[in-house]
Amino acid sequence: MNESNCLFCDIIAQKKPSKKIYENDLVYAFLDASPNSDGHTLVIPKKHFEYYSVTDDEYLAEVAKVGKLIAQKMYQALKPAGINYVSNEKNEAFQKVFHYHLHIIPKYQKDEGYSFKLNVDQGKLIDLAAIQTTLTL
Amino acid sequence: MNESNCLFCDIIAQKKPSKKIYENDLVYAFLDASPNSDGHTLVIPKKHFEYYSVTDDEYLAEVAKVGKLIAQKMYQALKPAGINYVSNEKNEAFQKVFHYHLHIIPKYQKDEGYSFKLNVDQGKLIDLAAIQTTLTL
Repeated sequence: MNESNCLFCDIIAQKKPSKKIYENDLVYAFLDASPNSDGHTLVIPKKHFEYYSVTDDEYLAEVAKVGKLIAQKMYQALKPAGINYVSNEKNEAFQKVFHYHLHIIPKYQKDEGYSFKLNVDQGKLIDLAAIQTTLTL
Repeated sequence: MNESNCLFCDIIAQKKPSKKIYENDLVYAFLDASPNSDGHTLVIPKKHFEYYSVTDDEYLAEVAKVGKLIAQKMYQALKPAGINYVSNEKNEAFQKVFHYHLHIIPKYQKDEGYSFKLNVDQGKLIDLAAIQTTLTL
């Protein structure tokens, strides 16, 4: 189930330390060791998957559900103004540890910590209708 | 099921236009009208929930699963280097439309479009052990 040379598999196996928030049969949740804000938590499947798009549906669903429980607890315990939920897939998209993880990042003030900007030059985008045709499932 | 004055409920009801990618009984997926990159897609539940932490588990699971299908299709059709999955909850966390949505943002080059920075002043963070105690479920 675990993969060698995976930090998060080692954390699940308690070979490496972590600040555990929650666990059940399928997922494990712990504080990010390099937090973006107070309470920044990661939820991970207990089975190794490199990233989101290759994670089994059962685990994706459980990560999503436990992420909600943690978010609800965050509002009670830490009183953030909002929350960002993020998962980064592959190096160019800023993934650092190649074991699927959902970041749950409490947001206390808009101008501090995590930011989300739609900062693209619209002129660079190709035709939306063409992309729609390409992507439609 | 739908809420008045909700842009995304209107899109689902086809009262407002959208570039549809996929839909089933529970979810609807379409191109973001202000994309961060080519192919930037939103997946939303067909039932109105304001944001992630109040969305029913059944819908969270389906959004997650359909998000995966779309990601897999993106790699085939658009050849991005990676993908970012993001959901913003409440105004301070950059939510604009108050109907839960998962952003699926293809990433073509690291220095363009969506960025993810752990840009916090670590000195501002309170004690991790205290937060762990507060947050533990």
